[in-house]
Amino acid sequence: MNSNTDITLQSIGVVETEIADGDVPSRRREMISNIVINKDLEEALEGIENYSHLFVLFWMDQVDRNEFRTKVHPRGRKEFPLTGILATRGRNHPNPVGLAVVELLERTGNRLRVKKLDAFNGTPIIDIKPYDDYDRIEDVKVPDWWPGRKKKPSN
Amino acid sequence: MNSNTDITLQSIGVVETEIADGDVPSRRREMISNIVINKDLEEALEGIENYSHLFVLFWMDQVDRNEFRTKVHPRGRKEFPLTGILATRGRNHPNPVGLAVVELLERTGNRLRVKKLDAFNGTPIIDIKPYDDYDRIEDVKVPDWWPGRKKKPSN
Repeated sequence: MNSNTDITLQSIGVVETEIADGDVPSRRREMISNIVINKDLEEALEGIENYSHLFVLFWMDQVDRNEFRTKVHPRGRKEFPLTGILATRGRNHPNPVGLAVVELLERTGNRLRVKKLDAFNGTPIIDIKPYDDYDRIEDVKVPDWWPGRKKKPSN
Repeated sequence: MNSNTDITLQSIGVVETEIADGDVPSRRREMISNIVINKDLEEALEGIENYSHLFVLFWMDQVDRNEFRTKVHPRGRKEFPLTGILATRGRNHPNPVGLAVVELLERTGNRLRVKKLDAFNGTPIIDIKPYDDYDRIEDVKVPDWWPGRKKKPSN
């Protein structure tokens, strides 16, 4: 990676949750959090309440970037084959940017109450984008080891 | 936004396409591009060929950040109501990070051939993540003005 190509972002808000960091992985499918957007951007949320689902990009500031490896056992499970880090949804990507598809429960001013945001309390928010029909891919192929593979999708 | 919370990313690769920048918006549903990942990260792609679809995060380095406004008419169409920028998929978000769901056609070493990546030639890549069943939301609510609203989703 080349430092000449540094890209600088600013936090646009922060995650608030009472769930302890260590419980986030196991509770990520049901947890409810607040996203508090910076007050000067409150107007930029106008109309977001008309969507049911959002993409949330967040900065995983607690990831130790010295732990970066190009290959990992997905989810730390040795029975899953050693796999390139970009072919997993793990936290140790070259840029530790988190991406979650969340359900928007409520907007109150600059606060969004959301479900399924697998981010720790205090995590900086980078961006929010509405989820639309084009983001729903009907026929998805994933590797044999993928944990969700044999499950029927449900929301 | 607070400069104390600056977040620094590095480019992990670059988009290659012969499609002119001005044609990207109209051709985004069919266009085919290459993502060339930095050679030192080639191993990090191992196994990505087992997925059919990927999320691609990219840095829209041609966006003029002085053009930022908190509200816009979506897609520049005056018949759509003035809407908060975060409630649109437009380019002028506070952090101009692009997000595309693409179809992975082929991997050759550090090159990914993908369909539906609506990024200009030369765009820096920030991250790639596999798309999985949990990212497919069956019952999506969008605003009345949303252009894709009345279409049946198809891939």
